Amino acid sequence: MKTLIIVAHPNLDESRTQQFLQAASIDSNVQWHALDNRPLNVAGEQRLLRQADRIIFQFPLYWYSAPASLKNWEDTVLTRAFAYPADGGALIGKQLGLVISLGQPAAHYAAGAPEQFSLSQLTVPYQALAQRLQMTLLPSFIVDQFGYQSETQKMQLLVDYQRYLTQPSLGHFDGEVDWIVTKLAAINAHQNGPEQQRLALIIDQIKQNDATLEGLQDTLTMLKEGED
Amino acid sequence: MKTLIIVAHPNLDESRTQQFLQAASIDSNVQWHALDNRPLNVAGEQRLLRQADRIIFQFPLYWYSAPASLKNWEDTVLTRAFAYPADGGALIGKQLGLVISLGQPAAHYAAGAPEQFSLSQLTVPYQALAQRLQMTLLPSFIVDQFGYQSETQKMQLLVDYQRYLTQPSLGHFDGEVDWIVTKLAAINAHQNGPEQQRLALIIDQIKQNDATLEGLQDTLTMLKEGED
Repeated sequence: MKTLIIVAHPNLDESRTQQFLQAASIDSNVQWHALDNRPLNVAGEQRLLRQADRIIFQFPLYWYSAPASLKNWEDTVLTRAFAYPADGGALIGKQLGLVISLGQPAAHYAAGAPEQFSLSQLTVPYQALAQRLQMTLLPSFIVDQFGYQSETQKMQLLVDYQRYLTQPSLGHFDGEVDWIVTKLAAINAHQNGPEQQRLALIIDQIKQNDATLEGLQDTLTMLKEGED
Repeated sequence: MKTLIIVAHPNLDESRTQQFLQAASIDSNVQWHALDNRPLNVAGEQRLLRQADRIIFQFPLYWYSAPASLKNWEDTVLTRAFAYPADGGALIGKQLGLVISLGQPAAHYAAGAPEQFSLSQLTVPYQALAQRLQMTLLPSFIVDQFGYQSETQKMQLLVDYQRYLTQPSLGHFDGEVDWIVTKLAAINAHQNGPEQQRLALIIDQIKQNDATLEGLQDTLTMLKEGED
């Protein structure tokens, strides 16, 4: 699975959030693509989109939407001939995710809270875009108040963000376990001696727990069927 | 009441809709302000905003939002020091209206219709902006499929658009009658002879009808009070 991250931020070099996310995005199947002030090469942008399975719009929320550079990219790159399902339909079946960074707590975006509107309400234009282009919309990935996060929170953010970029089936527990096992196995390939053995044991234990859980779920399903 | 129309359209000279609206907007209290590709003069833009009582964002809907030029204007001009109520609060109490032109029928913007989402859903970011800046949001003014409109429809559009720009209390019947009487009186100032007398009679008739209607409403109110 190939992931393309389209990053819209007017001062990328000064954003600690984006610097952190860029470092966390390094993966052979992930492409970091930051928009800048240069004129867009439409054919080049469209080629990148065709190659991707998961397309991420990543931006800080400015006035309840993405910065102008992303809108300019949409207006320029997503031509009718390329994107409309009745015409090119180049994005049909691809995934669309939003990575939104907030200067305020995420809890401020709710009815009755200071911002009054939820992020699900504010991102309706992107929901409409995905619907029109027959893309599958992913739940948004929210990074709020990065500067106030503890080191532990940042480590969790790093793992969650990597999962958001690379885990094939997001939002499913099975997918999560598979993803963790694959990642740990990849790390272990670079270890040796006792470290390697210890990590191998951990991986086995995770797999065993997962198998046990599956067995329990099967039993539960049988019991439920017996009740009907 | 001063009205400022901020027009965001990448090809203004080629848009028949915008050409029509511009011709219809001519009024000493209305300022037509089209955004172009030149760098924004932030102080100049802010001065225009301060002078206005009603601020209109006017644009064609591109990918379910305004063109990038309006977003760039928002991100650049609406600085915290200028606009946030706790800081400058320069827009507190002003009105915000949206004039949105659509290539498709307005009825396509509804659950179950081709676009699935309503314009009230798609414009949530502007609702949030108005809420944050303590502005009063007006109902949006929609111009759909201008090219397919009959001459009669276009005349109606012209009157409705002029009302949207200049009628002080939008959405109230009283305001509407006052507005029409004022407009007719202004036209009549340039007439003479029998034309002037005829128009004066029409104005009198409208005022009389309005007085009769008010009398009926008062009677109705009294009857209702008697019931309680």
